[in-house]
Amino acid sequence: MWNPKSTAYLIAAYSAGFPQGSVFFCVVDPDVGSGARTPVVVQCDGNYFVGPDNGQFEIIRRRAAQTRTSRITWQPKELSASFHGRDLYAPISARCATAGFDGLELVEATRFEDWPDDLAEIVYVDHYGNAMSGLRAELVARDAHVNCAAHQFASAATFAKVPRGTAFWYCNSNGLLELAVNQGHAAQMPGLSIGAPVHVIR
Amino acid sequence: MWNPKSTAYLIAAYSAGFPQGSVFFCVVDPDVGSGARTPVVVQCDGNYFVGPDNGQFEIIRRRAAQTRTSRITWQPKELSASFHGRDLYAPISARCATAGFDGLELVEATRFEDWPDDLAEIVYVDHYGNAMSGLRAELVARDAHVNCAAHQFASAATFAKVPRGTAFWYCNSNGLLELAVNQGHAAQMPGLSIGAPVHVIR
Amino acid sequence: MWNPKSTAYLIAAYSAGFPQGSVFFCVVDPDVGSGARTPVVVQCDGNYFVGPDNGQFEIIRRRAAQTRTSRITWQPKELSASFHGRDLYAPISARCATAGFDGLELVEATRFEDWPDDLAEIVYVDHYGNAMSGLRAELVARDAHVNCAAHQFASAATFAKVPRGTAFWYCNSNGLLELAVNQGHAAQMPGLSIGAPVHVIR
Repeated sequence: MWNPKSTAYLIAAYSAGFPQGSVFFCVVDPDVGSGARTPVVVQCDGNYFVGPDNGQFEIIRRRAAQTRTSRITWQPKELSASFHGRDLYAPISARCATAGFDGLELVEATRFEDWPDDLAEIVYVDHYGNAMSGLRAELVARDAHVNCAAHQFASAATFAKVPRGTAFWYCNSNGLLELAVNQGHAAQMPGLSIGAPVHVIR
Repeated sequence: MWNPKSTAYLIAAYSAGFPQGSVFFCVVDPDVGSGARTPVVVQCDGNYFVGPDNGQFEIIRRRAAQTRTSRITWQPKELSASFHGRDLYAPISARCATAGFDGLELVEATRFEDWPDDLAEIVYVDHYGNAMSGLRAELVARDAHVNCAAHQFASAATFAKVPRGTAFWYCNSNGLLELAVNQGHAAQMPGLSIGAPVHVIR
Repeated sequence: MWNPKSTAYLIAAYSAGFPQGSVFFCVVDPDVGSGARTPVVVQCDGNYFVGPDNGQFEIIRRRAAQTRTSRITWQPKELSASFHGRDLYAPISARCATAGFDGLELVEATRFEDWPDDLAEIVYVDHYGNAMSGLRAELVARDAHVNCAAHQFASAATFAKVPRGTAFWYCNSNGLLELAVNQGHAAQMPGLSIGAPVHVIR
């Protein structure tokens, strides 16, 4: 939560596989209302990404062949101080989905060049307690071990491959290296929270 | 939860800004199945509010220029004892949205005249732990302090205006005075639960 | 969770009352990716049930006049190891809803003949903490008492019929015998979790 850097790796993983012309409405925006961030539409290889230019789009932009970033200059009649998702980004997303978007004012996207291509940290904990990292699993050897918060994880292809209650890592359905417990809640293991470093060990 | 009085102030705040002809399907109904409440459609300034006449609609009615309350006389083929939202109010809401609603049997709405125009209590705690009051923030001086459950809150325009972990009050995106903690969970402060009195201090 | 047997009784209860031609997309699939289960479409009295043949459909099949089980032979271009709900069952459900489904390869459904017609256990705990059993309440005398995990429950028609905080059982809106507390959280009573035996006492 409140973490545009973690979000950047999730957006890159979750947006794969959608048909061209898809619109992604992305609002992890802890600075909402502060004026610190430019509201943008980022076009990447035929898809639209709508939200604040706070790093969320760094990785999707880096991995795209073609990108174009436009400032959103439209303003709603009433703009609340704290909910630009509703007031600004949702109507712009609807416009992208129906009429397309021709932002006349191209802007230089803010770059976060020190962010790695893959983030060796927990970036998200889902409803079931599975802890996703920002690492693309295809870049990790399947027989590697993973350490996180002093816990060790061997790999398995699916939940059913390990006994109930056993922790493991696997390539999740979005291609990220994920820490999980079969029929359990991985994030209840001490230290498995967003930002925790993930170490791959050969 | 289970509180038609708190709900009345939320409905009034959340229904603002919708286009005319909107249908609000409102079922906070702890007395469901008891026969204690009349099922109604309330028309207020061109919008429809559907649900039990248990006080939920007191504030929206009070603030409207024109209101009309009709008893729902239609009965579904099967009416469960505990889920009139599904069996009765949802189909009627769908009818309001598609064909309109001409309730032939107008009824006198139950009045809750002792309820204030603005409720100086916590009326809702959202997913993030933000605690909304029933006070319209536009009626409160922006430099006022607020007390709730022995905690004191200064005002801030947005979350980003205070340090991480700091509690404050602000005018939320629905116009209500809300107690929050930047990147934290206000309702974990002892006593910040629904019904707790909120005191505005000049 | 992770329990196809409990799910079987829920599917049978929740699918009642839908119009003919409805599609039920049912994926409680702890063995996903293991190859242990056949992906099927079950047609029951004009409705479609889509998911793994792991027992989920045992009760709906048993109660139907006409059933037909077909293996899903279609494969998506990319099938993740852990999310067949998204990759396989969702597109097939969409096809059932739009074009119908003519599975050419009929299969013998896996039978779970030792499962009872009604399951005297907690099968689900909802968001409010109400604990549903797998017993159809119409088969239980309304003046019966129910025991579960050493707690005793008298019957009531609705929540409003008992004082706030009182535990009771009732026929829920899907026809199941459910344990609840008026304006409380039944599943916080020790032992009231999925799988706990439910005893009906005359």
